[in-house]
Amino acid sequence: MELIRIPRIMQDTAGGHFLHGRSIGLVPTMGALHEGHLSLVRRSKGENDITAVSIFVNPLQFAPSEDLNKYPRDIDGDTEKLRRENVDILFMPDAHLIYPEGFSTHVEAEGISEKLCGAFRPGHFRGVATIVAKLFNIVKPARAYFGQKDFQQAVIIKKMAKDLDMAIDVVICPTIRENDGLAMSSRNLYLNKDERKAATVINKCLTQTTELIKSGIIDIESIRRFMKEKLSEEPLITEIQYASIYSPQTLDELEKAGKGALLAIALKIGKTRLIDNMIVNP
Amino acid sequence: MELIRIPRIMQDTAGGHFLHGRSIGLVPTMGALHEGHLSLVRRSKGENDITAVSIFVNPLQFAPSEDLNKYPRDIDGDTEKLRRENVDILFMPDAHLIYPEGFSTHVEAEGISEKLCGAFRPGHFRGVATIVAKLFNIVKPARAYFGQKDFQQAVIIKKMAKDLDMAIDVVICPTIRENDGLAMSSRNLYLNKDERKAATVINKCLTQTTELIKSGIIDIESIRRFMKEKLSEEPLITEIQYASIYSPQTLDELEKAGKGALLAIALKIGKTRLIDNMIVNP
Repeated sequence: MELIRIPRIMQDTAGGHFLHGRSIGLVPTMGALHEGHLSLVRRSKGENDITAVSIFVNPLQFAPSEDLNKYPRDIDGDTEKLRRENVDILFMPDAHLIYPEGFSTHVEAEGISEKLCGAFRPGHFRGVATIVAKLFNIVKPARAYFGQKDFQQAVIIKKMAKDLDMAIDVVICPTIRENDGLAMSSRNLYLNKDERKAATVINKCLTQTTELIKSGIIDIESIRRFMKEKLSEEPLITEIQYASIYSPQTLDELEKAGKGALLAIALKIGKTRLIDNMIVNP
Repeated sequence: MELIRIPRIMQDTAGGHFLHGRSIGLVPTMGALHEGHLSLVRRSKGENDITAVSIFVNPLQFAPSEDLNKYPRDIDGDTEKLRRENVDILFMPDAHLIYPEGFSTHVEAEGISEKLCGAFRPGHFRGVATIVAKLFNIVKPARAYFGQKDFQQAVIIKKMAKDLDMAIDVVICPTIRENDGLAMSSRNLYLNKDERKAATVINKCLTQTTELIKSGIIDIESIRRFMKEKLSEEPLITEIQYASIYSPQTLDELEKAGKGALLAIALKIGKTRLIDNMIVNP
């Protein structure tokens, strides 16, 4: 596995592969890798000549009040995991090379960036779109892989790539879950034992709401009430930010749940913010 | 000369040239071509294997109150001029292919986009950065050519390309002038005979201010006063938007004029908005 830390060298390396007709698959990550990330890596390995994984904890997508500094980091563990997956390139740039002094250009997919998580994390998706646009220009991938767990992020990246003619196939891969159903997330590391157990309520709520919809209860009032009641059973939840049914394209709330609708939840357990979602396929 | 109207076909064509190791030079224009544009074309012809010219009157960079609909158009004349210059590709897409329904992603170089012209044309440079980002992704040029007449635009494009790692050489070429010194611009076509004559005051003011600075008068108060007095001699000027000396990097006003400082003017003659600038090189 080639470790590259300088954007210009990554760009030249990618250019060389491109000129030789070798396709690159990119898996952008913030490190603290788990099976969710590795499932993206495996998908990329199967579809591209070269697989590059980037590890960059992007300061631009954290608000001052958020967890940038305590975001979990495990460079040695991550490197070992990627080596075992036979990843070709690990791109791990320093922040000052990505955002040199005077940096001021931003990319924003408007409309969908302000909804759901965007309403609670102003500027977050602008930071995400900007770093991903940069990574796309540096790594020049044919395909880039994102997990469905961060559904809004994936939709925004897809939209940005289309709107700006990036000619990159943005591939959204299934959420990988722990045995008890909790969606894998680097932030799960923040949870203590009781919180970790409490967090299983999210997947239970999504699964049971899906069953409710399949049974024919499809109006938003009933769905919202059901989800709220289900989540309220768990006393360690300190805040429910959203829990409802949305259009997977516009991320607007739906009046009635139909095929392909998005069930999505964001909440806090203790101080840890967790998100999860499920697509209804009746 | 190959005429391409479909972005996807332009992108595939560019990809083919890239894979064959042929460099592309791009000259982005809004048509109504004059010698200024053609000087960019000739520079590109000298530096690249393939020269592509785009003609697209970009609705995103016009405010509702501005001259989008009456912006001069001369497709036949433009095509003939480019053919005579042996341009390889004319890319002339329809607006609905560039901005399909639901388009909502924008690129913005913050800080420098709000100054000078940006203060009088809110959103203008966001529209410029967005269309140029798209053209860069569609045409994949090694180099792109812009005239110094639109100095702020050129600085913003250079900044965007650098900040977003576009790996494109943004080349700024000298302003081309009429015999009487007026900077060439498609908008000069708006001027009637008297206004056309009055417009020469802009270049005269820039030239004489440069001489003033060379003579040792370098403080901003004297320079501003001199420019204002000079421009006030012309009664057909209906509005002076700015006329002063600026840093060519930050576009902030300077306290003292030094080597490389930017003298810039924006004003209206009748209803026509004209801009021009000069770099001080004492």
